[in-house]
Amino acid sequence: MFVINPLIEQCTCSFVNEVHKIIDLKTKPQGSLGMLESVAQKVAKIQHSLSPSLKSPCVLIFAADHGIADEGVSLFPKAVTEQMVLNFLAGGAAINCFSRQNGLDLNIINAGVCSDFTAIEHPSFINVPVAKGTNNFLKTEAMSEVQYRQALEQGAELVLNKYNAGCNVIGFGEMGIANTTSAAAIMAALLNLPGETCAGRGTGVDKTGVAYKAKVIDQAIALHNLKGASAEQVLQKVGGFEIVMMVGAMLKAAELSILVLVDGFICSVAALAASKIAPHFIDYTQFCHQSNEQAHQTLLAAMGAEPLLNLGLRLGEGSGVAVAYPLIVSAVTFFNEMASFADAGVSESE
Amino acid sequence: MFVINPLIEQCTCSFVNEVHKIIDLKTKPQGSLGMLESVAQKVAKIQHSLSPSLKSPCVLIFAADHGIADEGVSLFPKAVTEQMVLNFLAGGAAINCFSRQNGLDLNIINAGVCSDFTAIEHPSFINVPVAKGTNNFLKTEAMSEVQYRQALEQGAELVLNKYNAGCNVIGFGEMGIANTTSAAAIMAALLNLPGETCAGRGTGVDKTGVAYKAKVIDQAIALHNLKGASAEQVLQKVGGFEIVMMVGAMLKAAELSILVLVDGFICSVAALAASKIAPHFIDYTQFCHQSNEQAHQTLLAAMGAEPLLNLGLRLGEGSGVAVAYPLIVSAVTFFNEMASFADAGVSESE
Repeated sequence: MFVINPLIEQCTCSFVNEVHKIIDLKTKPQGSLGMLESVAQKVAKIQHSLSPSLKSPCVLIFAADHGIADEGVSLFPKAVTEQMVLNFLAGGAAINCFSRQNGLDLNIINAGVCSDFTAIEHPSFINVPVAKGTNNFLKTEAMSEVQYRQALEQGAELVLNKYNAGCNVIGFGEMGIANTTSAAAIMAALLNLPGETCAGRGTGVDKTGVAYKAKVIDQAIALHNLKGASAEQVLQKVGGFEIVMMVGAMLKAAELSILVLVDGFICSVAALAASKIAPHFIDYTQFCHQSNEQAHQTLLAAMGAEPLLNLGLRLGEGSGVAVAYPLIVSAVTFFNEMASFADAGVSESE
Repeated sequence: MFVINPLIEQCTCSFVNEVHKIIDLKTKPQGSLGMLESVAQKVAKIQHSLSPSLKSPCVLIFAADHGIADEGVSLFPKAVTEQMVLNFLAGGAAINCFSRQNGLDLNIINAGVCSDFTAIEHPSFINVPVAKGTNNFLKTEAMSEVQYRQALEQGAELVLNKYNAGCNVIGFGEMGIANTTSAAAIMAALLNLPGETCAGRGTGVDKTGVAYKAKVIDQAIALHNLKGASAEQVLQKVGGFEIVMMVGAMLKAAELSILVLVDGFICSVAALAASKIAPHFIDYTQFCHQSNEQAHQTLLAAMGAEPLLNLGLRLGEGSGVAVAYPLIVSAVTFFNEMASFADAGVSESE
C-alpha cells in the first residue's frame, strides 16, 4: 500500500558527501553543532535538496476514545477526550499555546471520540470518526478489519491533502483517555516485551495503577494471541482509532518525502508500528522528545531514535513536537544561512 | 559591590503558592509539562509577577584574546577571534542565524581582542576593550587588579544600559581562542579539581592536546597558588577579559532581576564565579544546554544546574542560549495563555 524509498539509495553518494561538506565548511569547529547537524542532514536528504526548507508546518492531533478505559486504567474520566477536543478548538490547551508561538498550523482530527461533533464547524476541525470509540480489548478486538483499513486510509488521505496544500513537515500529536494502555499493549506485542516493561503512569496513575495496566496488557496479548503477530493484527486487536490513523498518516507522509515529527510515547508507538509495516519509514522521522513515560526510553532505543528534547514532558497532544519545532528550524537555518570559512575570511583549524 | 536578593526570601510563601496553583490548575495532568513548569516558576519568581513577560530579549557575546594561546592549547590561530568578531558583525555566524530566527537582539562586545577595532562602526558592536588580550598565565598573572575591576564594572554597565532600555532577559555568549583553557583553570581552582577533570577538547584538540591543557592548568594553579583562593583572585590570575566582563554583567543582571540565560562551558564557568561572589546568583539563571565539552557535566552538577538542552553542541558564541530561547518563551506562554480546568470546562482527575 505504501511505497517508501530508502533514503540511502535514493540519495546518491555524491549528494550525501556534498551535504556533509557544506556543513563542515561552515565557520565553526567540525561537528560543533551536534544534533542540529544531523537534523540538517536528515532534512536535506529527505528533500534531496542543498537548500532545504520547511513549508506550511503543521501539527495534526488525532483524538479518539478507548473501550479499555472501562477497565479503570486512567485517572481521568472518558468524557475528558471530548472536553479536551473542545479545549483544543477553543485555543486553550498547551498545544494551542505552543503552536501559536511557533507558527504551526493546528488541526484537530476526530478519529473516533465517544461524542457527536457533527454540529461543530471550526476551520481547524476535521471530523472523520471511524466509530464512537474502540471496543474494550479485554473483551473483544478493539476494532474490525474494515475499521482498521478505514482509519489507515483516512490518515493517508489527510496527509495527501496537506501535501497538496504545500506542506512538507508534519508534527503528530494525540489525545485519548486510556490511550497509553493501548499504546503500551502495541509496544509489548511488537517488541515481545512483558506488560510491566511497557506500562507507565499515563496521566498520573500510581504504582498500583501501573501494575494493573501491565496486567491488563499481558491479558490482552494472551487473549488475542499477539505473540509474533503482524503490526496490522496488533493494531487491529489492541490499537485505537487515533493510533491507526496516525500510522496511515505517517506512512503517507514518508511516501511523499514529508518530514515526520514524532511526539511522545503514543506517537512513538505509532512510528514503531509504521516501521514494522514499511522498514525505511524511520529515515523520514525526527523524534522530538523523550517523554517521562517510563517505557519511552526503551521504545526509542528499540528504534535507534535520538530525540531532541528531554524535558520530562508527559502530556501528549503534540506538545513535545511543538516546543521542539524551533530546533528543526535552527538546523535548516544554519545549513542555509551560515557563512563558510571562505565566505567569511576565517582561518580553518591547523 | 553587587546586592542580589535571595529569591526565596524575596518571594513570600503565598506568592510562591499562587504560582504553583496557577500551573497545577492548567488543563493538563499535574507536572506533565516537566521542566517548562520549573522555568515558568523561575521567571514568575524573578519578576515577582503572576503575568511574567520576556521583554527585549538579547544575547551579548563577549570576545577577547588570551595570552595562554601562545602555549599552543587551541587548534585555531589567535587571529580567529578577530575574524569571528567580523563574522558576527557581517551576520554569518551560527549565533547570527539563531538570533535572527528567534528574535534576539545581538550585541558583540570587544572585551579585549588583540586587534584595533576603532574604525568599526556597527549598531551591534560595543568596543570596550580592557587591553589587547590577557598575559600568558603560565608566565605571569593574566591581568592586573585594575584591569580585573575595569572588566567587571564594564560588564555591569553594559547590563545597566540594557535594563534601562527595557530588557529583562539576557543570554550570554563568548568568543576567544584558547578560552576553554582559561575557563577550565578557573573551574579547577574554584572547585578544587585536578586539571584533567576540567580540560576538554575545546575547538577539537585530540587526547594528547587535552592532556597538555590539563598540565598547563595544574601548572598555572601551582604558580599562582590558587588552592583555596577567592573567585576574584582566581579570575584575575587565570581568567580572561570576556570571562570577567561576563561575571560583572551576570551579577548586575541578577541584581536588576533580569533572567540570566547561560550558554555552554565558558559561560557556566563565569556563572560559577558569579555564584562564588554572590551566593544567590544561581536563582536568577537558567542554564540552556549541556555542552559536549567533557567537564561541563561536572560543572553543572556542582551548581545543581539542570540545563534545558543536551544536543552535543560545543560551539560557544551563545549558540546554545539562542537555540534554547524558544523553550523559555514556551514556558512563559503556557503560564500566561493556557486555560484552567474551570475556564475550559474540563473534568479534573478522579
